[in-house]
Amino acid sequence: MTKKTAKETIAIQTKLVMPNDTNPMETLFGGQLMAWMDELASISAFRHSGRICVTASINNVSFDHPIISGDFVTLEAKVSRAFKSSMEIFVDVSVEDADRNITKCNEAIFVFVALDENKKPIQIPELVPETELEKKRYDSALRRKQLSLVLAGRMKPSEATELQSLFE
Amino acid sequence: MTKKTAKETIAIQTKLVMPNDTNPMETLFGGQLMAWMDELASISAFRHSGRICVTASINNVSFDHPIISGDFVTLEAKVSRAFKSSMEIFVDVSVEDADRNITKCNEAIFVFVALDENKKPIQIPELVPETELEKKRYDSALRRKQLSLVLAGRMKPSEATELQSLFE
Amino acid sequence: MTKKTAKETIAIQTKLVMPNDTNPMETLFGGQLMAWMDELASISAFRHSGRICVTASINNVSFDHPIISGDFVTLEAKVSRAFKSSMEIFVDVSVEDADRNITKCNEAIFVFVALDENKKPIQIPELVPETELEKKRYDSALRRKQLSLVLAGRMKPSEATELQSLFE
Amino acid sequence: MTKKTAKETIAIQTKLVMPNDTNPMETLFGGQLMAWMDELASISAFRHSGRICVTASINNVSFDHPIISGDFVTLEAKVSRAFKSSMEIFVDVSVEDADRNITKCNEAIFVFVALDENKKPIQIPELVPETELEKKRYDSALRRKQLSLVLAGRMKPSEATELQSLFE
Amino acid sequence: MTKKTAKETIAIQTKLVMPNDTNPMETLFGGQLMAWMDELASISAFRHSGRICVTASINNVSFDHPIISGDFVTLEAKVSRAFKSSMEIFVDVSVEDADRNITKCNEAIFVFVALDENKKPIQIPELVPETELEKKRYDSALRRKQLSLVLAGRMKPSEATELQSLFE
Amino acid sequence: MTKKTAKETIAIQTKLVMPNDTNPMETLFGGQLMAWMDELASISAFRHSGRICVTASINNVSFDHPIISGDFVTLEAKVSRAFKSSMEIFVDVSVEDADRNITKCNEAIFVFVALDENKKPIQIPELVPETELEKKRYDSALRRKQLSLVLAGRMKPSEATELQSLFE
Repeated sequence: MTKKTAKETIAIQTKLVMPNDTNPMETLFGGQLMAWMDELASISAFRHSGRICVTASINNVSFDHPIISGDFVTLEAKVSRAFKSSMEIFVDVSVEDADRNITKCNEAIFVFVALDENKKPIQIPELVPETELEKKRYDSALRRKQLSLVLAGRMKPSEATELQSLFE
Repeated sequence: MTKKTAKETIAIQTKLVMPNDTNPMETLFGGQLMAWMDELASISAFRHSGRICVTASINNVSFDHPIISGDFVTLEAKVSRAFKSSMEIFVDVSVEDADRNITKCNEAIFVFVALDENKKPIQIPELVPETELEKKRYDSALRRKQLSLVLAGRMKPSEATELQSLFE
Repeated sequence: MTKKTAKETIAIQTKLVMPNDTNPMETLFGGQLMAWMDELASISAFRHSGRICVTASINNVSFDHPIISGDFVTLEAKVSRAFKSSMEIFVDVSVEDADRNITKCNEAIFVFVALDENKKPIQIPELVPETELEKKRYDSALRRKQLSLVLAGRMKPSEATELQSLFE
Repeated sequence: MTKKTAKETIAIQTKLVMPNDTNPMETLFGGQLMAWMDELASISAFRHSGRICVTASINNVSFDHPIISGDFVTLEAKVSRAFKSSMEIFVDVSVEDADRNITKCNEAIFVFVALDENKKPIQIPELVPETELEKKRYDSALRRKQLSLVLAGRMKPSEATELQSLFE
Repeated sequence: MTKKTAKETIAIQTKLVMPNDTNPMETLFGGQLMAWMDELASISAFRHSGRICVTASINNVSFDHPIISGDFVTLEAKVSRAFKSSMEIFVDVSVEDADRNITKCNEAIFVFVALDENKKPIQIPELVPETELEKKRYDSALRRKQLSLVLAGRMKPSEATELQSLFE
Repeated sequence: MTKKTAKETIAIQTKLVMPNDTNPMETLFGGQLMAWMDELASISAFRHSGRICVTASINNVSFDHPIISGDFVTLEAKVSRAFKSSMEIFVDVSVEDADRNITKCNEAIFVFVALDENKKPIQIPELVPETELEKKRYDSALRRKQLSLVLAGRMKPSEATELQSLFE
């Protein structure tokens, strides 16, 4: 099974925020943004695995900078690490002004699972990180996976070696 | 400032899933569910604080049981703990059958911040947990807050006393 | 066939009105409200009958108090009376302020019919009203049913005994 | 103030029903149809009064013939009678086949109120019915108005002369 | 196969522009208008051919007069000429004021193809233009068809006799 | 005023087609695709001009290859030529399979006008084409502009020198 680079999994959407997308405070409705992010993450997962993928979990969704009607928003999804049949995917959201200056607004981390024809999990290619940021996210992905297993009671904290290193 | 019980902050939506809400696998589109959850969490936040509230972060969104077109879905949002101006809110999602048997499908944990007229954070009432589950979520909320601060690099792991106890 | 209480048939949706839901006067678009009401009434009908139900008629939809973007709106649907295979369902709509003061805004009366697997009407349980309001609505339901049959030319006015009593 | 004929108030929408508009039974969602009807009735009210109009009540919404995805549906709204500042409007809904045969599917009766610049009710022109059906609906409109006042407790049954005649 | 007059193919939609339909400049979003036009043109094509029809191309979409929230907009679609299995359809868009004065806002020319049960193109009736405008559009339709074939490289300019006459 | 390359004006959206986006033939609704294209073209226009831009016209919209629910669709918009205050923009649409093989499905040519603060047309930078395709589209843009002026009766065919060359 051929490995894929993180770069090969990038999926992009640039959108113009419409009044239709806003909440009563006239900023982008968070739920609408989540819907866009989830759609885009599923495309990145497809590009890595060549399979239909379903959302398993979402974490670390941050809302740092409000987005308003008329803003030009770019979402970029990229696989950060592949496990056996699941992938961790970062979605980064930013706005740009008339001079193409970029302001980072949001981030979220999705986990998707690739399914075969019978909707059972299926093995997927390894992911190869190349840039500094890709490598950093690749390395920390294991820590997040352990954290999620510990919090769900499916791994003993004492076995979460990656996670423990945080507190040493 | 009067304290509020968790029960007073409950917000509910029961929905019939329409074809309009589904993805190409004919299950409920995860992004649509996120949009419903975010709207409902903001109502729970309003009921606790009496203020307009904005989403600060979302975590632990799990997708355990697929939901299909025609399902009757109930979302319940409830504040689990109030901090200075922010609240942690659980949204639980379940489906029911013709005999009112309930299957838990999803869960998510939102953090909202209450804003004053100038869109600055403002102090909110304390939350009083009453049931066993409310108390359990209240207690673990502090651990999640520390975890989020540590992961964001805004708290030293050594200061995250609640979190460390997990690994001892 | 087990009887059901009115209380068991309650279905609730609390919503935050978005710009997306408004008409050009910047109040909640009546057609959008009708769509929410119809969805919720079908859930109440399902909870009473355990069957897929379809809308047969809608009456007495009143618009008393305008609702604006940013309002927190609660819809409550409850079966008022069950006939052979049809149910009458009230949907009450109200808004709440920061102190949880409630203002009644709208009301509508739906009739749904329960269908079997072949999409034919099927017998449903009786409804037991308990509160004063439930009993009042239960009693007047027969009058409304007769009125609807008379207006449709399917009952002679002289046979509409409940209705005639109004004019004596 | 110039009178208007019923014909001058006609507003029409022909629509192709999309999967997007259906419920889980794969027929047109009743709430979506109500939204279309309400929008169209407001246009008919505008054409009669030349004013912004708001929905006051809806009655007699009947669902006689199911509509499916791919159907070509025509809605026609027409003012049936004008009172001081309010209008009664019929909306008739039908589908057509490839030979332009028409099947009546739904009907609803709306009451709209015309507003001035300060959102206060304002006097509107009289309506002149011309065809047999227009005259029949014009005549029965008074009976419906009395019925609605009686049911709302704002008119004594003994004063509802038009309505009483039904039961003599 | 019976011929049809242009008049028999007319399809109409009058709409009230909602905030939901606007772009950040608070005028009707062009893409939303295109969606309405495409739906309506497909209905006109169905009325001419009695067949399911699919969009083949769109041209000459002009945006001459901005439309705002609260405007009453009428779209009218009418077949301008029928070829073997394809039809050219004009969609004209206008707004009206309180005195029913009409302002033309947009125009577009669609080509639809009629399909049989196997989704293959099928022969359709001839179109008979009657009014001056219908005849003018009928005549120029051939020129537009040649232009489209020339631009697509599927007809030699020297064979486009109708088109050449423009430049003589 | 700095020139811009065509590459700098690229805007991209990759989308997963949902049941919500389909017509009754279960393919992507053409009107929905037009809405996506128009939004994306406006972003490309903004990236070239740094200004709010409005749609002036749309042409050459072709529907060559049907798109179905579940398809992964990529839209790419790019300015092909800048005139005084208007830009011509190509939007190309394609689908990809699991091996990233691309099938071209649709194309459309938009003209947008850049507006200043008073909503008046304002001068924009020149566009520099670099690739073969960019140069070909740049050259043919003038011919399309003349064609549009001739068809609108705002240029004499004898003055449309670029256009005439087609027929020599």
